[in-house]
Amino acid sequence: MKSIKIGLIGFGTIGTGVVKILQKNSAVIRQRLGASLELRRIADLDITAARDVTVRRELLTTDAAAVLEDPGIDIVVELMGGIEPARKFILRALKNGKHVVTANKALLAEHGHEIFTAAAKRGVDVSFEGSVGGGIPIIRALREGFAANNILGIFGILNGTANYILSRMTEQGEQFEDILKDAQEKGYAEADPTLDIEGIDTAHKLAILANLAYGKKISFGKIYTEGISKITPLDIEFTRELGYKIKLLAICRGNGQEVDARVHPTLIPEGHLLSRIDGTFNAIFLEGDAVGPCMLYGRGAGMLPTGSAVVSDVMELSRNIIKGVTQRLLPIGREPLREISIKGIQDIQTRYYLRFSAVDKPGVLAKIAGVLGRHQISIHSVVQRGRRSRGGAVSIFMLTHEARESGLQKALREMHRLSILKAKTVFIRMEESFLRAGE
Amino acid sequence: MKSIKIGLIGFGTIGTGVVKILQKNSAVIRQRLGASLELRRIADLDITAARDVTVRRELLTTDAAAVLEDPGIDIVVELMGGIEPARKFILRALKNGKHVVTANKALLAEHGHEIFTAAAKRGVDVSFEGSVGGGIPIIRALREGFAANNILGIFGILNGTANYILSRMTEQGEQFEDILKDAQEKGYAEADPTLDIEGIDTAHKLAILANLAYGKKISFGKIYTEGISKITPLDIEFTRELGYKIKLLAICRGNGQEVDARVHPTLIPEGHLLSRIDGTFNAIFLEGDAVGPCMLYGRGAGMLPTGSAVVSDVMELSRNIIKGVTQRLLPIGREPLREISIKGIQDIQTRYYLRFSAVDKPGVLAKIAGVLGRHQISIHSVVQRGRRSRGGAVSIFMLTHEARESGLQKALREMHRLSILKAKTVFIRMEESFLRAGE
Repeated sequence: MKSIKIGLIGFGTIGTGVVKILQKNSAVIRQRLGASLELRRIADLDITAARDVTVRRELLTTDAAAVLEDPGIDIVVELMGGIEPARKFILRALKNGKHVVTANKALLAEHGHEIFTAAAKRGVDVSFEGSVGGGIPIIRALREGFAANNILGIFGILNGTANYILSRMTEQGEQFEDILKDAQEKGYAEADPTLDIEGIDTAHKLAILANLAYGKKISFGKIYTEGISKITPLDIEFTRELGYKIKLLAICRGNGQEVDARVHPTLIPEGHLLSRIDGTFNAIFLEGDAVGPCMLYGRGAGMLPTGSAVVSDVMELSRNIIKGVTQRLLPIGREPLREISIKGIQDIQTRYYLRFSAVDKPGVLAKIAGVLGRHQISIHSVVQRGRRSRGGAVSIFMLTHEARESGLQKALREMHRLSILKAKTVFIRMEESFLRAGE
Repeated sequence: MKSIKIGLIGFGTIGTGVVKILQKNSAVIRQRLGASLELRRIADLDITAARDVTVRRELLTTDAAAVLEDPGIDIVVELMGGIEPARKFILRALKNGKHVVTANKALLAEHGHEIFTAAAKRGVDVSFEGSVGGGIPIIRALREGFAANNILGIFGILNGTANYILSRMTEQGEQFEDILKDAQEKGYAEADPTLDIEGIDTAHKLAILANLAYGKKISFGKIYTEGISKITPLDIEFTRELGYKIKLLAICRGNGQEVDARVHPTLIPEGHLLSRIDGTFNAIFLEGDAVGPCMLYGRGAGMLPTGSAVVSDVMELSRNIIKGVTQRLLPIGREPLREISIKGIQDIQTRYYLRFSAVDKPGVLAKIAGVLGRHQISIHSVVQRGRRSRGGAVSIFMLTHEARESGLQKALREMHRLSILKAKTVFIRMEESFLRAGE
């Protein structure tokens, strides 16, 4: 039986998961692959720390070159994360004719074009199922399962940490900061949680999905990105009463010429499946012009779920090695790869949830409504909450009809000049249009 | 640009969908495939009926041999359905060295082994994504995305007609017969709905999924199969009050030596995502030992969703043709393919919902409880409903703890000999164990 030789760079959480799966599931892997996978070398700066798996001492090295330059290694698995030196290592592996499996979403979102182009030139493959949605096979679905479709829209809950925090805020009414602290203690959130809670990790993943959906280059830096750190229990409670859940949503809708791609907290109607995705789970809801609405759901991160995706990629590349083919799926970096333009956030049209902290005087609501009206923003419903005024402020909650973001921004600026507001106005975008197809 | 030649047998609903997608989405298909797909011939007994798509008259033929024997055709797409002559046509296509795409679940469930063996012998491929879950890429997910996993369980809502009827019974409290009639008028149910409502179609699909999950032969005929025609609004209403929805569920759980594979109406807790799958939608919830719980959701049938799956298969086989490889995914019919034994329904252990129509006399509940106790069935909760007795009968609703089916069956038989029951006792199995992983 043929044996495919694997080199691993990065022996952290996911790396450990990959080694566990290769050890524990070797029988089912051999049965499905008709070949065995042999882990030949593991490189990590730290090769002494205790890990949740046992490997022979001689497999371990602190020298990445021992993996990258080993002519016996067929597939390099990069799981160190971050941009450098991961980028250099992958480029070197490709140059040496090795196939690469990576789960590095930041690298692919920011330097994917360079990597895929290098792979295409050298005639080797890069697989990256683990980069989005943990073990959920969304990359394969976009490249193969839905390949006959024009993708009309992608709506993803792509970050488990942010979803865990929002779910707990919803269930228990706790403050953002308290849950974050607890999540950090439990290991659900990083010591520096910026990438997760500010939506950057979600935007990385969206860039990868949009690139696959439209076959065009997406500038990650142009994706409008807003995190969840300003969401309050008050907004969660009130939107819930209105029949919505707040989720950090990656949205991408396009026609192949221009995409509306953005990441922000979003009101989702409670009747929609995406509103039911709680805790650390991820889900990608997508609409194709033939397949209609679909959703893929699962654990979005973690040792074994992401490890499952990484090993599935190793198996895919192994099949190609066994059959002597490369580039069976068209490489994403084929030239000419045109960049697709991203609609500016000012130009989007959507519905909004607004919360005003207004002075407690008669006529204030009329003034607010007047300003909105002058900027073509129609009010769908409005509720003024009690008069439990702190410093003379009342809360006015509002849902608008569909409006242009530039108009809303102008209206809010104008309103704040009128001295009728006591604090910055909270506004959260809504997403309901997928219901048309999903009903 | 290379062009792959397709021959289609069966120009019904799905066939029309495939033709529509090939016409409408040719640009995106070419872009993703790097080749074009050319529909060279369409065979159907009826080539004069008006269809929802226009094709050149000379493509049409009533003679399947014009497809099967055309040396210019690379891929034969079989969409006629049914066992014969589909089986003969597919075997002839394979013998002629053609790859085959089919969505024929009945054929694959009952004669899959013969077909896959023939394909393996001839060194060609058979793809069948459209056979389960319409456009949902579940076949790919099991063969590739989750390939590194031991599959612990599969729980599927796999029949849109049955799910539509149960959803409407739940939402509107209507009788099964009335909804079925309406569904038939709307085209959601066949004139002869037996395959759909009696669970046979679901069992066909389960046989295919179980075969992929365990890599062993599954005897379709040994899968316990029970449909939804005996479900009443009363049971739906009462189980709903208890926090459950009734779904026609395909269940498969195994350890590689023996599987518990069955199809029957099932109580699912309302907190579980599967309970939210309504209307004609399908979903497959599955658990792998690495990936954990996952769910794939989408339209389970229809011209374009199933057409999407069929064309994705044509694209997959086309990639192989372009690269000059076959059997890249190990054929399912490799010898020796051992048959996996299926646990008899008498041997399963599960919880039950029971509804007794008992005579309206004191002491009846004690008698029922006594019989259950003698057969090791513990009662979780019991409710006796009013005394709106028809002919002196009262309804007693009960949830049991986990019990062995053989014990339950014996208890029910014994009880019916006591003359305390006025009608046959309704029992519906529950499924909650997937929550352990899915929580």
